Amino acid sequence: MAKEKKLVESITSMNEDFAQWYTDVVKKAELVEYSSVKGCMIIRPYGYAIWENIQKELDRRFKETGVENVYMPMFIPESLLQKEKDHVEGFAPEVAWVTHGGLEPLQERMCVRPTSETLFCDFYSNIIHSYRDLPKLYNQWCSVCRWEKTTRPFLRTTEFLWQEGHTAHATQEEAEARTEQMLNVYADFCEQELAIPMIKGRKTDKEKFAGAESTYTIEALMHDGKALQSGTSHNFGDGFARAFDIQYTDKDNQLQYVHQTSWGLSTRIMGAIIMVHGDDSGLVLPPRIAPTQVMIIPIAQHKEGVLEKAEEIRGKLGAFRVKVDDSDKSPGWKFSEQEMRGIPMRVEIGPKDIEANQAVLVRRDTREKIVVSLDEIAEKTGELLETIQKDMYTRAKAHRDSHTSTAVTYEEFKQAIAEKPGFVKAMWCGDRACEDKIKEDTTATSRCMPFEQEHLADTCVCCGKPAKAMVYWGKAY
Amino acid sequence: MAKEKKLVESITSMNEDFAQWYTDVVKKAELVEYSSVKGCMIIRPYGYAIWENIQKELDRRFKETGVENVYMPMFIPESLLQKEKDHVEGFAPEVAWVTHGGLEPLQERMCVRPTSETLFCDFYSNIIHSYRDLPKLYNQWCSVCRWEKTTRPFLRTTEFLWQEGHTAHATQEEAEARTEQMLNVYADFCEQELAIPMIKGRKTDKEKFAGAESTYTIEALMHDGKALQSGTSHNFGDGFARAFDIQYTDKDNQLQYVHQTSWGLSTRIMGAIIMVHGDDSGLVLPPRIAPTQVMIIPIAQHKEGVLEKAEEIRGKLGAFRVKVDDSDKSPGWKFSEQEMRGIPMRVEIGPKDIEANQAVLVRRDTREKIVVSLDEIAEKTGELLETIQKDMYTRAKAHRDSHTSTAVTYEEFKQAIAEKPGFVKAMWCGDRACEDKIKEDTTATSRCMPFEQEHLADTCVCCGKPAKAMVYWGKAY
Repeated sequence: MAKEKKLVESITSMNEDFAQWYTDVVKKAELVEYSSVKGCMIIRPYGYAIWENIQKELDRRFKETGVENVYMPMFIPESLLQKEKDHVEGFAPEVAWVTHGGLEPLQERMCVRPTSETLFCDFYSNIIHSYRDLPKLYNQWCSVCRWEKTTRPFLRTTEFLWQEGHTAHATQEEAEARTEQMLNVYADFCEQELAIPMIKGRKTDKEKFAGAESTYTIEALMHDGKALQSGTSHNFGDGFARAFDIQYTDKDNQLQYVHQTSWGLSTRIMGAIIMVHGDDSGLVLPPRIAPTQVMIIPIAQHKEGVLEKAEEIRGKLGAFRVKVDDSDKSPGWKFSEQEMRGIPMRVEIGPKDIEANQAVLVRRDTREKIVVSLDEIAEKTGELLETIQKDMYTRAKAHRDSHTSTAVTYEEFKQAIAEKPGFVKAMWCGDRACEDKIKEDTTATSRCMPFEQEHLADTCVCCGKPAKAMVYWGKAY
Repeated sequence: MAKEKKLVESITSMNEDFAQWYTDVVKKAELVEYSSVKGCMIIRPYGYAIWENIQKELDRRFKETGVENVYMPMFIPESLLQKEKDHVEGFAPEVAWVTHGGLEPLQERMCVRPTSETLFCDFYSNIIHSYRDLPKLYNQWCSVCRWEKTTRPFLRTTEFLWQEGHTAHATQEEAEARTEQMLNVYADFCEQELAIPMIKGRKTDKEKFAGAESTYTIEALMHDGKALQSGTSHNFGDGFARAFDIQYTDKDNQLQYVHQTSWGLSTRIMGAIIMVHGDDSGLVLPPRIAPTQVMIIPIAQHKEGVLEKAEEIRGKLGAFRVKVDDSDKSPGWKFSEQEMRGIPMRVEIGPKDIEANQAVLVRRDTREKIVVSLDEIAEKTGELLETIQKDMYTRAKAHRDSHTSTAVTYEEFKQAIAEKPGFVKAMWCGDRACEDKIKEDTTATSRCMPFEQEHLADTCVCCGKPAKAMVYWGKAY
């Protein structure tokens, strides 16, 4: 029993030290391991299995909208990176430079891609000639590299995994529609699969992507009240097309510039899953994305028939991702491990249960125990997993709503940021000066101008000038 | 018709110039596009869709043997790369070096991974402590970088995609069994899915992997008689474990070094698919791996009911990967395009066919036309795709066998290499000097010592000393 207790105790309490809790969970649930490569993490099998489930489902949703996958080079020659002025200013300070190939110095140094707009533009300028070649709806799954001074697993690492979609369209309207469509794909995916409610909105000019005309974002609220930007979708207009000379001949035989978008979601989303749903016992995974949905744990497994019954139940639950823990550890230890790894549900089955033709289902999220007949265990498991998925979303949404406040005056605003962890909704004049002042005074940043606007007041919460938009503000990862 | 003819003519004939034929096919079938990054290729949607099918099936086969996926950093600090002497000697001359991160020079330069043995060893030394932690059966799908002077799409590029499996075991026997198991996974995959027969064997010391105790290989024969190394599996013994201090406590509480393996298959295999099965009209894809298995091409599609019937047939063929080409191009152009892209089968459906309640199935590999009733088109399509898959393998094997000769004297050997493109089987004394001499005299290299040994003579084909093994020799990509 001492060992079992220690296992649970080894996670720091969230309320005591949220950052340490996070580090404990990613390490002890074996999601990642630190590497001897500065700022880079190793994604271990359990962490990678979650990412594979995310990839599979997101990729399916992309392809449903006509997107095709490609693979682009991992290097960008310096001259190519420099073609779009805002873009290079945004990324040059944080890239890794390759200067030698084999034993010889390169004539031109190349960076390891921090993102691939410039490569896609170069590619598109070669393959787009006529309106018949449009639209191009390409995506790639790859790793990218941005040099970071301080790093945290999933949230901020020098190298991370993501997908980056890059599209080219005949008209600005089509590009705008695609930008919004992909933001909706992200939001739907996060809400339906990850059980994380999202605020959808537009970034201010200060916070938008380097080179974009407009950036849309989905923002989630973590358990500690900090925001996490979870996916972005950018409309580039024809800015990159002009810099890279991507032109097509339209139906009237006139040369036109294409209009482009890009959109990305990364392993950062794993941080959101952990910080939205986790608790003091560890990870809590939404059933739809969990590598293992059900862990069957035999009680007194040395007794005759117990392991056989556990296997029989596994057979009955063949429609789910299910495992039997028949290791030589104690049931208590197995419960702790199943909880730490966030497996949504366990089935406890022992001699007394077998006698009564029943088993005990235990929810990871609420710890509620439900006794079910073995005759209907498959049906009940299916129902319970759906209930867990739904309840996790509802709880996350309730947490977000109860951690969202409204401020009309600057005093209210500062007090809300200081005292109530969460989003603060407030009006904004549209000037960057107010964003800068708010950040300096409170460390909060504008998260987005939500699509669902509310009229809270006539004037900017900071300067008192006429307001242009309601903004979600918050401290962010 | 002029345009249609040109489409076909735009591929150089294989017999005229095989290298140009290859380049034409990869370009015109839109598998790759050259990039402005030296030595790197862009894998276009059609090429990437083939790679995705390869990944999906190979990944399934790996997981069936207990393998789990992980993701490791893309960078290797120089000191880590240098830990195993043979390994660094093999790879240091061909890696890309990162010397600057952001605006500052790095304290220690890092290479972009050419392969990840050193990273996995570093990882394993942290997570393996006890015999309970073994075996570790990890794999990753990623890109790697090896600086190449001359490059060709898929066959030799500075960056390429692959999977690399890395395992750690308690005993040498277990490591050896895993090395052979994974070679068999590769061979079975290539034969069953890609319809490419493989020679399985062991590399000579000269040709083995840098740092390996033994390297096993699968070797395929291309249409031009040159060999292509298609996948390798290495047994490292405890060499890396000693260099990286990867020890575990065994059941008797004694410290032991682990025994390791690694195994890899890359986008190079796409080159094999092209060069084993392709013909003068372009690509010929094995049905099991083809992104589109059946292309339905309507004839006189402007006539009433034709497009509707094409769609109806698509519905009937729902069990296959099927498309309708309803573009405004002519049927002849569509046939050419379907052939160039190697789509295994097409269905021609026109007004007369509809009247007779039939359709014409045309095999890509033999061009044979088969008239079938629409009532049994699904059944016939399934049978035909299986027949095509089987026949493609049989033809490839017949080609290989008819391009494999035997040499007992050195004169016979030199003549065979010079005059009969293909493998030459000959005895070898085991000395590197003979391999070097053979390479100098003929440019042929030892491909492998096949598992299926034959006794062709008592003496080495080159020096006349007693022979130790029969070797497959050949010119290689």
